[in-house]
Amino acid sequence: MRSRLVYQDGSHHRTFVLAFDKAEDPVPLLVRFADTQGLSGSHITGTGSFERAVVGYFDRLEGDYVRIPVEQQVEVLSLNGEVALRHEKPIVHLQAVLGLRDGTTRGGHLLAASVWPALEVVVTEHPRYLRRRFDPELQLALIELNGSS
Amino acid sequence: MRSRLVYQDGSHHRTFVLAFDKAEDPVPLLVRFADTQGLSGSHITGTGSFERAVVGYFDRLEGDYVRIPVEQQVEVLSLNGEVALRHEKPIVHLQAVLGLRDGTTRGGHLLAASVWPALEVVVTEHPRYLRRRFDPELQLALIELNGSS
Amino acid sequence: MRSRLVYQDGSHHRTFVLAFDKAEDPVPLLVRFADTQGLSGSHITGTGSFERAVVGYFDRLEGDYVRIPVEQQVEVLSLNGEVALRHEKPIVHLQAVLGLRDGTTRGGHLLAASVWPALEVVVTEHPRYLRRRFDPELQLALIELNGSS
Repeated sequence: MRSRLVYQDGSHHRTFVLAFDKAEDPVPLLVRFADTQGLSGSHITGTGSFERAVVGYFDRLEGDYVRIPVEQQVEVLSLNGEVALRHEKPIVHLQAVLGLRDGTTRGGHLLAASVWPALEVVVTEHPRYLRRRFDPELQLALIELNGSS
Repeated sequence: MRSRLVYQDGSHHRTFVLAFDKAEDPVPLLVRFADTQGLSGSHITGTGSFERAVVGYFDRLEGDYVRIPVEQQVEVLSLNGEVALRHEKPIVHLQAVLGLRDGTTRGGHLLAASVWPALEVVVTEHPRYLRRRFDPELQLALIELNGSS
Repeated sequence: MRSRLVYQDGSHHRTFVLAFDKAEDPVPLLVRFADTQGLSGSHITGTGSFERAVVGYFDRLEGDYVRIPVEQQVEVLSLNGEVALRHEKPIVHLQAVLGLRDGTTRGGHLLAASVWPALEVVVTEHPRYLRRRFDPELQLALIELNGSS
């Protein structure tokens, strides 16, 4: 995975472009990148394709993800997500819609994927007012609305 | 539903974050919010999950929506829409792609939903050049392109 | 198709709104528009509906698209894409998720469509650091990451 800082306005309002190569899994690489760069809260979008992927559906009774393997080459039709903080460490949530060979789609939280041949991701740090914090009960990264009006 | 004005640049270029709570329906709450705030034209994005929802497919011969109930907990994989004006009153159009437990997706106009456990929406007012007006014949909110080049 | 330049900041950072009319195919019209305007690298989003469409799945062994006809009125649930350069000529890549009458979805690269009754597209030129170039081997438009860090 190659990355490039393409925009900076102040210390915590940066935009990065990340290019993932063949057979890389973007999920752990994004977590490591967020940790290395000290990302506090960021929006993620992406485009490309996978040779296979695992999407997840969160079972609220079980408190865990149902894992849904997608065992074929798929197009990334929509990919968006967030970096949030949990105990001051960044975590990454991604939602994906994937296009199959027959034109049907599969989607869910992106739990794992193998890029083929390429995936590009744009990571944009939020201004301070849109920072998110991970809520362990809800298993969601929520914007902090303290002092909401 | 809690809301917060998180950005303001002039009188009609505002960004709000809305946090919906368990069992709330975001559709009528968004209409009321748009009315209360005097939103003239805005872009909407969102992330979260529903315990159930109704999506719509507009039947152009009948001039009405086919209602498609989705009777299970679903992930919001993609949610985007617009606030537009109809007879000076704001109306809200939302398109949603929802992820089911088996990884398949359902989508359409979001007609109703019950949030579970959380939904977050970012509402961004457009600059004047991107204001939309509702076209009753087309049942679409269209950007005004008067004086188009 | 009507278009309007709605924002300009310097010679190559423009935003256009394009309104497509009944029975128009946005794919070749977007290519021609990109060529006429000299678009170097741009992001595309859109909303509206089609009376029919063809989406594509890229078969990497065959090196060509599998064409998947969608022969009914569909809602555009998600539409995003890029203008990139190939031998200095702009090409257009679009990913679409379409909503069917029964609430299921189809998606892929948008190869052809017939607008009904309307489609609106916003085309935003990238700053220089996000320009893309077409990679013929990968059949993808990639951001140039020369001098990546």
